[in-house]
Amino acid sequence: MTYRAPRGTFDVMAGEVEKWQLMETRAREICRRFDYKEIRTPIFEMTELFQRGVGETTDIVEKEMYSFKDRGDRNITLRPEGTAGVVRAFVQDKVFAQPQPTKWFYMGPMFRYENPQAGRYRQFHQFGVEVFGSVDPALDAEVIALGMKYFESLGIKGARVEINSVGDRDCRSVYREKLIEYLEPYKDQLSKHDLSRLYRNPLRILDSKDPRTKEIVAGAPSILDYLNEKSEQHFQALQKYLDLLGVPYVVNDRLVRGLDYYTLTAFEYMVDIPGAQASTIGGGGRYNGLVEEFGGPEMPGMGFGIGLERVLLALTEEGVRLPVDTGIDCYIVTMGEEAKAHSLKILQQLRMAGYSADRDYLDRKIKAQMKAADRAKARFTAILGDEELSLGKIQVKEMATGEQELVEINQLTDYLKQKLSKA
Amino acid sequence: MTYRAPRGTFDVMAGEVEKWQLMETRAREICRRFDYKEIRTPIFEMTELFQRGVGETTDIVEKEMYSFKDRGDRNITLRPEGTAGVVRAFVQDKVFAQPQPTKWFYMGPMFRYENPQAGRYRQFHQFGVEVFGSVDPALDAEVIALGMKYFESLGIKGARVEINSVGDRDCRSVYREKLIEYLEPYKDQLSKHDLSRLYRNPLRILDSKDPRTKEIVAGAPSILDYLNEKSEQHFQALQKYLDLLGVPYVVNDRLVRGLDYYTLTAFEYMVDIPGAQASTIGGGGRYNGLVEEFGGPEMPGMGFGIGLERVLLALTEEGVRLPVDTGIDCYIVTMGEEAKAHSLKILQQLRMAGYSADRDYLDRKIKAQMKAADRAKARFTAILGDEELSLGKIQVKEMATGEQELVEINQLTDYLKQKLSKA
Repeated sequence: MTYRAPRGTFDVMAGEVEKWQLMETRAREICRRFDYKEIRTPIFEMTELFQRGVGETTDIVEKEMYSFKDRGDRNITLRPEGTAGVVRAFVQDKVFAQPQPTKWFYMGPMFRYENPQAGRYRQFHQFGVEVFGSVDPALDAEVIALGMKYFESLGIKGARVEINSVGDRDCRSVYREKLIEYLEPYKDQLSKHDLSRLYRNPLRILDSKDPRTKEIVAGAPSILDYLNEKSEQHFQALQKYLDLLGVPYVVNDRLVRGLDYYTLTAFEYMVDIPGAQASTIGGGGRYNGLVEEFGGPEMPGMGFGIGLERVLLALTEEGVRLPVDTGIDCYIVTMGEEAKAHSLKILQQLRMAGYSADRDYLDRKIKAQMKAADRAKARFTAILGDEELSLGKIQVKEMATGEQELVEINQLTDYLKQKLSKA
Repeated sequence: MTYRAPRGTFDVMAGEVEKWQLMETRAREICRRFDYKEIRTPIFEMTELFQRGVGETTDIVEKEMYSFKDRGDRNITLRPEGTAGVVRAFVQDKVFAQPQPTKWFYMGPMFRYENPQAGRYRQFHQFGVEVFGSVDPALDAEVIALGMKYFESLGIKGARVEINSVGDRDCRSVYREKLIEYLEPYKDQLSKHDLSRLYRNPLRILDSKDPRTKEIVAGAPSILDYLNEKSEQHFQALQKYLDLLGVPYVVNDRLVRGLDYYTLTAFEYMVDIPGAQASTIGGGGRYNGLVEEFGGPEMPGMGFGIGLERVLLALTEEGVRLPVDTGIDCYIVTMGEEAKAHSLKILQQLRMAGYSADRDYLDRKIKAQMKAADRAKARFTAILGDEELSLGKIQVKEMATGEQELVEINQLTDYLKQKLSKA
């Protein structure tokens, strides 16, 4: 009997894992510079949290959640996205009572029961940020810039951002009516799925993937023509700040994002990835009502989520050079029983001095040990026989140059230090 | 309506998250030195994997797993431990066909439906290693040493390791009979739970938490008296290598670990934590049959799992000084609209040069901005008014000394570089 990872999930091993480590390290580094602190929330939450926070009528909640009852009969759900849990934590731990803004980032696995395809998995991974407590459009610009700087730090050149304003509740309810008015004559041409959203959430139809709906929507009124003064000012200021920051962007008035709670700014990061269905690798916006929705005070929020599988795809497609296994500092090759036992001590000494070191654990002959040293990409090979050991010495070979030297065993660490600092 | 994290789970925020980051960074660093590569497996696996790999009769599988059906009617389970998934990946991806040994480490969340208590959660986190392909007892010693060096690197002084041999299948079946023979007369004194294991898995009774069972077990025969020659040699060699590595240990012949698949070496890491029910913070052993069990070739394995919540408790109990938020490099305080807008540009410039920098996003007065700079533990505060801006200058204050200087805006990065490198 052999077992396989569940459909839509994958293992990451040496050769690939270095890329994940890099994506994470760079995210942490960018967040440090932008003064965003890490937050970690549980892998699962109470199901109602997502029903409330993501929206009952969304595809995510309707069709894609991993929901189940635990042994205590609680309805729990593997998180399908990162924002709901973070907002829940913000309210539960009364972080709203501390001085604002609160600037957080998170990274980790999310779960959606979707059809797996290139760059889309059932367990996928996101890097996201959330900021609370400020309505300053400069903060919207900072958040958008942070994502762009992240892509840049990874060497992705083709990243771009599209921005829009979905207005506040007032202007959106006006626009909603106008949109329904526009769409109603096309009722019998809309896909079944789009039709079902016509009165529940017509803005989502703007996002439709259906070709005929797309054509219809092309002529729909623009939300930007219905922004009230406050919303308009916010949107203008955002654009001014993005210009100041040198972040190139495109205004796309069809961009509404799927979630109910967005207000004012909405945006998406795109990279053209041949073969991938969508070029969107992340997105976000303002959610000025969500903290209240979760039982907190009235407090604005703003954030994005970036799909790391998509980022990885972009990195690969763009041919960005990624770090691979760089090999170890020293591999110890031994001949004879005494030497073999004693090599453990030397190994320990090297490792405690900060060097990566290894030896054979398969009782291999010297030739096979040398091969293993090659496979480990050892910068140095230290060869120890019983005879050398009795003299307190060890033969050290620099693999790049072939240069060989007999070194006192208790000088080995210093010898490597000197050699490696030169390299 | 307010929501809470599900029972037995928790959020980690600034102030605590630095400790988690440290536990992870140190684990990665120790693994680099010992030449162990990271592997990542999915958060959930097919349920039968754990039934087979952890053992049908274990508490974990019987009572503690988060198991459910997904929307495709698959039986899946949130991983309750790390080994099964790693072995599955080793077999699925045919890593056994590559040169051995394979040395892996993993870190991440695990899930068990247990009663939450100090240091025990339903979502908990483990750092573990797994090695495949070698029966060399020197490798057992290396694995044990790796864990001890990890505790040491975190500054935990009271860590110790207890070791045992549970023999191979041959000697264990002899010992099993002897143990049943010894326990049978006490049948009516064993707890119900222990009694239920008497014929299914009597070795587990040695691990019983029941006080009366503990007394009974104290007089039971020792597995060490039943080791065959091969097992005895392995155990002797392990002790010799641990001595060589300078790893102090205690032999505990009652230590059997809960899992069916252990052979030869079994061990546990302990730290005395007042208030915590158990002092065990990790453990592991050899599992020479597990790869085969999962459909791979005959291939030995060895590993440990360390509970990071327990490690954190130990760190706290021992009063180990942990890193806290170290603050940002520069906070920009602005006066006037022009200065406020332009500060975004300066912020971007500092951040791209590698410094952590921030500013106000709440339209605060200068005094409140200075307070925010304090809260952010800024090493420098840069004060920009419209007037300074028109001169292309900015006032920079070093917070530790109170020293203040007027600096050219386009020299600010260099100025900070010089100052911060001295500090």
